Amino acid sequence: MRLSSEPTTDPSDYEFAHRIRVRFVETDAMGIVHHSNYLAYFEESRVAYLAHVGHPFTEWRDAGLESPVLESFVAYRQPCRFDEVMTVHLQLASATRATFQMNYLITVDGEPRSTGVTVHGCTTTAGRPTRLPAWLVDLAARRTPERQPGV
Amino acid sequence: MRLSSEPTTDPSDYEFAHRIRVRFVETDAMGIVHHSNYLAYFEESRVAYLAHVGHPFTEWRDAGLESPVLESFVAYRQPCRFDEVMTVHLQLASATRATFQMNYLITVDGEPRSTGVTVHGCTTTAGRPTRLPAWLVDLAARRTPERQPGV
Amino acid sequence: MRLSSEPTTDPSDYEFAHRIRVRFVETDAMGIVHHSNYLAYFEESRVAYLAHVGHPFTEWRDAGLESPVLESFVAYRQPCRFDEVMTVHLQLASATRATFQMNYLITVDGEPRSTGVTVHGCTTTAGRPTRLPAWLVDLAARRTPERQPGV
Amino acid sequence: MRLSSEPTTDPSDYEFAHRIRVRFVETDAMGIVHHSNYLAYFEESRVAYLAHVGHPFTEWRDAGLESPVLESFVAYRQPCRFDEVMTVHLQLASATRATFQMNYLITVDGEPRSTGVTVHGCTTTAGRPTRLPAWLVDLAARRTPERQPGV
Repeated sequence: MRLSSEPTTDPSDYEFAHRIRVRFVETDAMGIVHHSNYLAYFEESRVAYLAHVGHPFTEWRDAGLESPVLESFVAYRQPCRFDEVMTVHLQLASATRATFQMNYLITVDGEPRSTGVTVHGCTTTAGRPTRLPAWLVDLAARRTPERQPGV
Repeated sequence: MRLSSEPTTDPSDYEFAHRIRVRFVETDAMGIVHHSNYLAYFEESRVAYLAHVGHPFTEWRDAGLESPVLESFVAYRQPCRFDEVMTVHLQLASATRATFQMNYLITVDGEPRSTGVTVHGCTTTAGRPTRLPAWLVDLAARRTPERQPGV
Repeated sequence: MRLSSEPTTDPSDYEFAHRIRVRFVETDAMGIVHHSNYLAYFEESRVAYLAHVGHPFTEWRDAGLESPVLESFVAYRQPCRFDEVMTVHLQLASATRATFQMNYLITVDGEPRSTGVTVHGCTTTAGRPTRLPAWLVDLAARRTPERQPGV
Repeated sequence: MRLSSEPTTDPSDYEFAHRIRVRFVETDAMGIVHHSNYLAYFEESRVAYLAHVGHPFTEWRDAGLESPVLESFVAYRQPCRFDEVMTVHLQLASATRATFQMNYLITVDGEPRSTGVTVHGCTTTAGRPTRLPAWLVDLAARRTPERQPGV
């Protein structure tokens, strides 16, 4: 298991937030959001985050790069329901030369509903593993100063 | 609107049948299958049908062809529920040189639940419209003799 | 087939617009939005429209009512792609005492990509058909004056 | 994090296998199965497993019970592609009085593609946590003798 940390339920531990309203199609016969949709919520938020930091997916694509998901983890704390507006809090948690990890917290009206982690690699569009872009490694280093040796 | 016929609820009007068990993820908070899933059921059945007639999607791909959906129609007659085993009846209803139409009937224990139609074109993988494969036009002609002029 | 009109590609024929950004999960191996997702886009927009006219789904629920989809039609004119921002134009096209019809046009940067129709009934939460709420019949009458007899 | 073990890539470590053919709708613009679908594959296989051991979901429902997913983990080792037939290997890995854990391995032609874990609770249909059914605790004990103290 590559994923190395359990994300917190404190929104102040996250650097970015993105709002998503639950669609009816995302509910299931238990009357709540089906657990598979959280990975899509994380993904939409990740795309918004990368655009926010000035490196939208188009930049990856133009560089011939993709960032496949290597691992995912979700803790379903409280269910979400149709038409609720979720805030997806996101943190670039760490990066090595080959992989990076994102942490997520979903809240509704400030109440924690779900936490999660995704671990990503970097490949060429042909699928060959390659180094992460330097800006992403730098960004992770700046975002998580406490994890740098000597600090 | 290209689609030209309303599919019947008589299974004997269909040439092929394919079974699918409803997944929990496909239900919604009304406790029934969400209406968007029927297009995926039709698609899975279409793929099975093309393999059955000896022209699997790999043959299309190897020929550099795709068959994008141009139109879809679904009539939701009675809902389907989690774990029900649906029979998707399928008929290649018609074909021109540029498009073909598939009719569908979904039954559970012989009871009609849904009918539908998809209309497909034929393009190169680059998206340029091209002629249907000859075998598909021939197949449609043989399947629907009553629709041919002079017969 | 209950659905009675083909929606136009002129945005000025629609009374309401709702924006949705294409998610990566909604794409398929042809590199475009999978055709089943348009029904979810229509649904999200319908929910936004009903809230906009002051009758959110919670009002339906509190009245013990649901509006199941009876029929759907989609014409896929041009594909949509990941991260494109779609505008879903919506029109309450007609209503009888038992059913109502919504028309949809999806544009990206003013270019028509897709049109569609959904036909809805009205049932109790137990699934028994019942009359549409009066406000909805009135709303449809006001929205489509040209269709009223004697006008 | 409740989940306690990383599932192996050895099919002989699993007690049950279920086959699923990849649908086109499950692919994404990278040409592979979108990572969110694995949770649906695990779920379909879990439902088949519970029927196989003689306790289908209907038994849960008739007893007024549900088994919500509390946590999920997926390791995406090699991608799956459209029309591939996956074998989902499943193991009831452990159970306490309140939760149980399932391990999964997905192979195609014997090659490991993905592993995963789901952790489930047990609630009444009203959402109140309750004890697991006794048969499930017994089943887990019999399936994993090596994990019992003193054996």
